[in-house]
Order: sequence, then structure tokens, then C-alpha cells
Amino acid sequence: MTNFAHIVNKNKENMTYGIIGTGAIGGYYGAKIAKAGNDVHFLFRSDYEYVCKHGLQVNSCNGSFHLDNINAYRDTNDMPKCDVVLVCLKTIANKHLTTLLPPLLKPDTVVLLIQNGIGVEEDVQKMFPGVQLAAGLAFICSAKTEPGIVDHQDYGQMNIGNYSASPERISAIIDDFNNAEVKTAEVDYKEARWRKAVWNMPFNGLTVALNTQTNKLLQNPSTRTLVRDMMLEVVHAAQADGVEKLQEDFVQKMLDMTDSMRPYSPSMKLDFDFHRPMEIEYIYTRPTQIAKQVGCPMHKLEMLEEQLRFIESNNL
Amino acid sequence: MTNFAHIVNKNKENMTYGIIGTGAIGGYYGAKIAKAGNDVHFLFRSDYEYVCKHGLQVNSCNGSFHLDNINAYRDTNDMPKCDVVLVCLKTIANKHLTTLLPPLLKPDTVVLLIQNGIGVEEDVQKMFPGVQLAAGLAFICSAKTEPGIVDHQDYGQMNIGNYSASPERISAIIDDFNNAEVKTAEVDYKEARWRKAVWNMPFNGLTVALNTQTNKLLQNPSTRTLVRDMMLEVVHAAQADGVEKLQEDFVQKMLDMTDSMRPYSPSMKLDFDFHRPMEIEYIYTRPTQIAKQVGCPMHKLEMLEEQLRFIESNNL
Repeated sequence: MTNFAHIVNKNKENMTYGIIGTGAIGGYYGAKIAKAGNDVHFLFRSDYEYVCKHGLQVNSCNGSFHLDNINAYRDTNDMPKCDVVLVCLKTIANKHLTTLLPPLLKPDTVVLLIQNGIGVEEDVQKMFPGVQLAAGLAFICSAKTEPGIVDHQDYGQMNIGNYSASPERISAIIDDFNNAEVKTAEVDYKEARWRKAVWNMPFNGLTVALNTQTNKLLQNPSTRTLVRDMMLEVVHAAQADGVEKLQEDFVQKMLDMTDSMRPYSPSMKLDFDFHRPMEIEYIYTRPTQIAKQVGCPMHKLEMLEEQLRFIESNNL
Repeated sequence: MTNFAHIVNKNKENMTYGIIGTGAIGGYYGAKIAKAGNDVHFLFRSDYEYVCKHGLQVNSCNGSFHLDNINAYRDTNDMPKCDVVLVCLKTIANKHLTTLLPPLLKPDTVVLLIQNGIGVEEDVQKMFPGVQLAAGLAFICSAKTEPGIVDHQDYGQMNIGNYSASPERISAIIDDFNNAEVKTAEVDYKEARWRKAVWNMPFNGLTVALNTQTNKLLQNPSTRTLVRDMMLEVVHAAQADGVEKLQEDFVQKMLDMTDSMRPYSPSMKLDFDFHRPMEIEYIYTRPTQIAKQVGCPMHKLEMLEEQLRFIESNNL
């Protein structure tokens, strides 16, 4: 499959992709677009030697596959310049982008930030004022369980919100993703970031603060009310921030969706469990600051942020 | 001492006291007024046989003492009717007052509820419409560490707020307490309950939710802000409820006082640690409901109440 894909690549003007952070997210999406025949270059850290020997395995609910020979690197200085860079790091590592990203950049490179939270593009744009940015919102349950193995459990859809990129380039990326069987749509950037926060803000932090999983939060009437109230805080803040299309009925949809999910530990809960830094800044601090600035403070989510800061100070 | 006190009792028209719940609070205050020569009758549960044999020991920062022969009971049906009843149960046991209290009541008995929270008097008055009630606000660090032994570590002052009792009877109780070296003052009922909530509401629940102690909450800048904001929520709700004398400057006083205290686990934290029911109803649910009714919702304390309900459901 990989060899065949390589031949296809040579016969058309494909875009070159770089994957910074080949974990549960970058490993899945990178492998999908590589499998479809695109020219993809993966940055690894600890898995580098393993994947050089054994390739990359994706165990997927939609059909597992293996990539024998992948373009693996452990230093972006060794990578080619890319048309599209997928940044799939945790946001807590974004300070490293100042050294990681420049070797990959052409004048027209699009950097797709597949990261959690609100405010990420703003900060990365400040670091790289001329670079074309877009937000990648991944709706996926996946995990990197072992070196070189990505476990894709559910969903997989990608929404892309254009922040500062050329519309044509965004369309081309969306085509590549859809051709790679990653269902991808373009969405309004600001609305999409807020919309995702409706789910992310209650569940990431509350599963940490109460050391539990999504299903238990919804089964208990008190925390079900709390989750709902927090979701409404996000909707109201988003509206005050100008996102009129996000309406209160979206809250019930998110509750229904979560009711239908298996018990789930969001990424922040996994970070907590493994004593890693949590993405408090972009999932909580920035959106609560924006909410306050637009006159619609998120009181309960502010409190959750403060609890998480306390918890993290005892957990690292 | 006890014998001498008994003789003194006989020579003047002293009030008879009943103590319902002889633990860290009831044991301390009951022993102090008994030591001063008042006629005091103590209800015990598990400690009954021990105190019948060995008496009651108070290890106190202000001077320890022992009562050899105390009037101990394990059923209020065996107790005499009393002029004053000190209810020192946890509020979660208040449903038992319907059977515990009637045997002690004369037509003019005053029931002093030395209990935590807001709304207690209202509910007990509904159970006993004709009974004279007052609130006892104990400022004390004490614990019952072993059977028949009360460990009094710090403070000990009592404020009494009249709810529905005769003013003369309240004065007489205050005199008895002061004569027993319990520094006691009369305070405005409603103001006193709210004033105590300023400290109680943040610290009781947050030490549980974050599994910590008072000092750590104040040392971390995020939770220090959270404690302060919660205290302000209480002050503003109290003001909206008509308690104008409670002002924002009281918040800084409470923070300063707590800074000067040794690391402390409030009663709710001890209940949590020992997997006992927590006093969520009167410390959180009732005051947050009142705050909402008077148009000044306590958002963060509502969230804490919901978290505590969740935590308790996994802790009993």
C-alpha cells in the first residue's frame, strides 16, 4: 500500500505534509493522509527508533492498517520544508514551536493547529506573524497505547477553521483529508473554537477535579446540573463574543451525545492521571478571560480553573 | 469539684441544662457549665458506659479538668425536663429531634441550636412551632479523640443569636455561660449566621473538594483568590438578604485570621475523611437557595455544593 501510494504521489503535484507531534492525534491523521498517497514527514520523540524499524500501526474502528516505511525524524532540522504542517503537540509545549517550526516553513506554508482550547492561533500568530494559520478541530477518540501504535476508538471527523490562511490552500487541504477518508469540513474559525469549548470546558476539568469519568458526571443529578450550567456559561460567553450561531439548544445535543458515549476520560484527565502538565491555559484561562472582557464572566468555569491550578501544583 | 458544685446548685434557683449530643462541642460546653455548678444532663451514645465508669475528661488549652460523676443518659426519655437544651448534633441528625427533644421540653424551655449552617432554626421551628429557639455559634477548635475525652485546642467563644426565645431567658443563659468561663455574647441572629458562613462556606467544602487543609488553600494564589471570591459571594448575598452590617472588609479579616491559624481541617473535612455524611444541606444548599431568592446567586458556592453532592455519593 505504501509503495503504491508513493507512485501515485509522484504522478501529481501533491502537497508535502509535516506532522509535529506524532501521538494519538498526529499519528492518526498523519497515517491516514500518508496511507492515501500523500508525502508525509513525521516528527517523533521517544518512538523514533521503534518506528524506523517497525513502521507505524493504526488500530482503527474503521479498519486497521500498517505503514511499513514512513518518513520519520527526530529533529525538524532534518525534515524537508512542507506545504502543510500539522501541529499536534499539547499546547503546553507550544513554546518549543519557535525552534521546531522554522525549518519546515516555506513562504506559503499553512500551519494547522490541531490543538485544544481558545487563543492558540492568536499566540502562535504572534510568534510567527507572517505564517498562514488554521485551526484543526479533531472529533476523535484515540490514544497512543504503545510505541508506534495508535489506537483509534471512535469518531475521527476533522473541522478546519481558517484563521489567516489562503482560502484556496484550505480547500486543498480539505480535499486531501477527505480523499484520505478523514471526513473534513470547513467551519467558521471562531464559532468552531467556542463550539468545541462547550464540551471541552466542563468535562476536561471536572473529570480531574472529581477524579471521575464523563458518564459518572452525567449520572449524578448534581454534577449533571453543573455540567449543563457550565455549558450554558460557554454558550453565553460565545454569544457575547459575537458567535450568534451558537445557541442554547447545542447544550442538550452535547449532553445527549455524551450520554451515548462509553465512559470516557478526556485528555486532561489522562494528563492528570499520568502526572503530566494540564492544558489549563488554553482550555480555561484564556476563554474565561475573554468571557470577562466581553462582559459575560463564566463564574463556575473560573472556579474550575482555580481548582485545576491548585490540583496541578500538587500533581507534577 | 462536682460535689461542691452540686451543693451550690441546691442553694440557688439554677436552670437545668440538657446536652443532646455530647461530642467535641456538646462535651466541651456541657462540661464547662457543669464544672461551674449548673445542673447538667448529658445524652451519650457509644460513650455512655465509659463515662458512667470514668467520668468526662476535658483536655483544654485553658486548663484541663475532669468531672467524676456526671448525669449521663442514653435515652432522653430517662432525662429530666430542662430549662435549656443545647442541641450539639450534626445537622444531618436533626430528623431525630422529633423523638429526642419532646421528653426534655417544658412550656418555657429554650433550645439552643449549636449547629452549623443557615436555615436550621427555621426547620426546627417547623418541627416544634411553640418552642423557644436560639442559635449558638461556637468559635472553637475541639475534637473528641477518645471515649469520654474532649480535646479543646483553641478559642471557645460562644455567640448567641435569639431566634424565638424570651430575651430574659437568653440573658440568663449568657450569664450562666460567662460564669462558667465561656466567653459569651448576644449577637443579631441573622447577621451572626451569615457572618459565620463567610468562613464556613469556602473552607468546609474546598478542603473536601481539593482534599487539603486551610493553610494550603491560602498559600496557593489560585485557591486564595477563589476563597476570597467565595467569601465575597457570601457577604453580597447576606447584604441582599438584609444584613447590612456585614461588609466586604470582613473578608480580609477572615483571611488574616485563617493565615494566623495552624493548618486546620474543618468539620466537614473530618466527616469526609471518616466517610460520614457531610452537612451539605445547611452549610450549602439552604444559603445558596436564599441567595438565589434574594437575587444575588452565589455561583461558585453553588458549584461547590454540586461537587460535594457528587463526592458524598462516592464516599459513604
